[in-house]
Amino acid sequence: MPHRIVHMLRARGSGRRPVMLAIAGDSAAGKTTLTRGLVRCLGADRMTAVCVDDYHRYDRAERAGKPFTALHPDCNHIDIMEQHLQLLSMGEPILKPVYDHATGELVRPELVEPRDFVIVEGLLPLHTRLARACFDITVYLDPPEPLRHSWKVRRDCDKRGYSPEQVMAELTRREPESAAYIRPQRKHADIVVRFAPVAGRLDPPGTPLSAELLLRPTIDHPELADVLENGPGDTETAMHLRLHRDTDGRPVDALHVHGYVSPEESRVVKKAIWERLGPRAGTALPDPDALGRIGDTGSSDPLAITQLLLLYHLLDADQRQAA
Amino acid sequence: MPHRIVHMLRARGSGRRPVMLAIAGDSAAGKTTLTRGLVRCLGADRMTAVCVDDYHRYDRAERAGKPFTALHPDCNHIDIMEQHLQLLSMGEPILKPVYDHATGELVRPELVEPRDFVIVEGLLPLHTRLARACFDITVYLDPPEPLRHSWKVRRDCDKRGYSPEQVMAELTRREPESAAYIRPQRKHADIVVRFAPVAGRLDPPGTPLSAELLLRPTIDHPELADVLENGPGDTETAMHLRLHRDTDGRPVDALHVHGYVSPEESRVVKKAIWERLGPRAGTALPDPDALGRIGDTGSSDPLAITQLLLLYHLLDADQRQAA
Repeated sequence: MPHRIVHMLRARGSGRRPVMLAIAGDSAAGKTTLTRGLVRCLGADRMTAVCVDDYHRYDRAERAGKPFTALHPDCNHIDIMEQHLQLLSMGEPILKPVYDHATGELVRPELVEPRDFVIVEGLLPLHTRLARACFDITVYLDPPEPLRHSWKVRRDCDKRGYSPEQVMAELTRREPESAAYIRPQRKHADIVVRFAPVAGRLDPPGTPLSAELLLRPTIDHPELADVLENGPGDTETAMHLRLHRDTDGRPVDALHVHGYVSPEESRVVKKAIWERLGPRAGTALPDPDALGRIGDTGSSDPLAITQLLLLYHLLDADQRQAA
Repeated sequence: MPHRIVHMLRARGSGRRPVMLAIAGDSAAGKTTLTRGLVRCLGADRMTAVCVDDYHRYDRAERAGKPFTALHPDCNHIDIMEQHLQLLSMGEPILKPVYDHATGELVRPELVEPRDFVIVEGLLPLHTRLARACFDITVYLDPPEPLRHSWKVRRDCDKRGYSPEQVMAELTRREPESAAYIRPQRKHADIVVRFAPVAGRLDPPGTPLSAELLLRPTIDHPELADVLENGPGDTETAMHLRLHRDTDGRPVDALHVHGYVSPEESRVVKKAIWERLGPRAGTALPDPDALGRIGDTGSSDPLAITQLLLLYHLLDADQRQAA
């Protein structure tokens, strides 16, 4: 054989590369709910979702003897995660490890072939510089901690067989690692999403949580100021965009979508976001009704608007790449 | 985020790349025996061995319903195998799938970090052009079919729980795919190795099989002609190098090492191979006694000489890369 000539990037022609979206956040921060709506709306034939929490280095039994929790980078194959993110971002398939949350075991890996759009959600997708370099759009989910704790208790008791006391103990054990490894990813996000009740309001039961979206100038967001100022009804209080100084002092636009927004106002904003998509504005979403769904029966307009904004960015990035 | 800038080759500096050796051959052709001696001799801290038969796409139960056997490329993740070979050849770790031969199940993958030398053995490591481009040295194991069949019956009955009838039926079922996919790899090997009894000789029981090594001019082999002609005792008949026209008409050197070679003659040839290693001739092998071992108790000088020739090529390739 002559000397080997191996060049990953040239192995399969150049072709279009998938648009990559990261959704980072702590356990039970709402990553799956946000992701599921996007995949259903655009269609699984165009979008692949990958959870990077499958890159656990140890199974549940092995972790029991370790001095760290599943949140710790040392507890995960971060280098393999980086490698797989690079491969996906170049349109290459991966054989992804699989962690079975029900049994706590590492099982047979699965083939993942990237579609036009790849969503990567999990605890640590933005942990390293190389991983971050793989994404076109990055999101951090940042609910208030008490709310996230309640979501985690419900989910882990319902679906993973833990007791509430076990979940609370685990949250306490994980807190130092959440602070050290998960929350620092917030600063690397183009969009920080916080679902929360509006302070000081007493909305009727069943009112969805409000969404606060910090839109950092690291990507180009659709201009919404005039729509929000001149929209129908009570638009300005139900939704508003404010210049804001982030906790780190950096300037940022904060888009608030209150849970009590009316369907009519919500529709106007969704239309406005979509119209700003330029040449692709006419793109029909296969299933727009998939947006805003929570669990099997719930729904939320602030969630739907958040998801639509992410779809805007996905299609916009795809459009720029094609140009 | 700015546009992603992902370049696999630059992700971790340049550094030295592992020397890659492929050992291809049909089931029970002797790949593991050949590989094991090399790893033991050079030491597991310097050499990684990978079996690419772990890249099965289906487990045993799933395969039962398919129109092909485990030998068929469609039954294997060939694209992922190619990807992993490229990564290993660039010094990157992989998360390798694992097929459990005892149960026929695909199980938890394992982390493989390449050392200075990587041996890749299996059914199809030379099947595609991209896979072949990853290797510095390529070997095909080509025992006579009746001999391989007997080895397979013994191995599969002893270690994998089959009956002799089952193994013979499986060999028959596999024959068209052996002809179509396994044996065509022979032409891509730098060295074709055939262990076989010498035709027409009646050696005493326990005499090892002879080795016939076809040395193709695709890599630089150590010059052995003068040693073989002027060696001690009966060297010329116990070992000889002959110019030969291969079955495809291409010229090739054929090195014969007969099973009845005396320990003294064998020692002279081993020394000669090693002295031709140039600057690294003084390199001590951590465990030279590991060469030539068969199973737990058997031993063979023709096998030891074959392994030493492969070690020569591994160290020579490493030396050239460093130069």
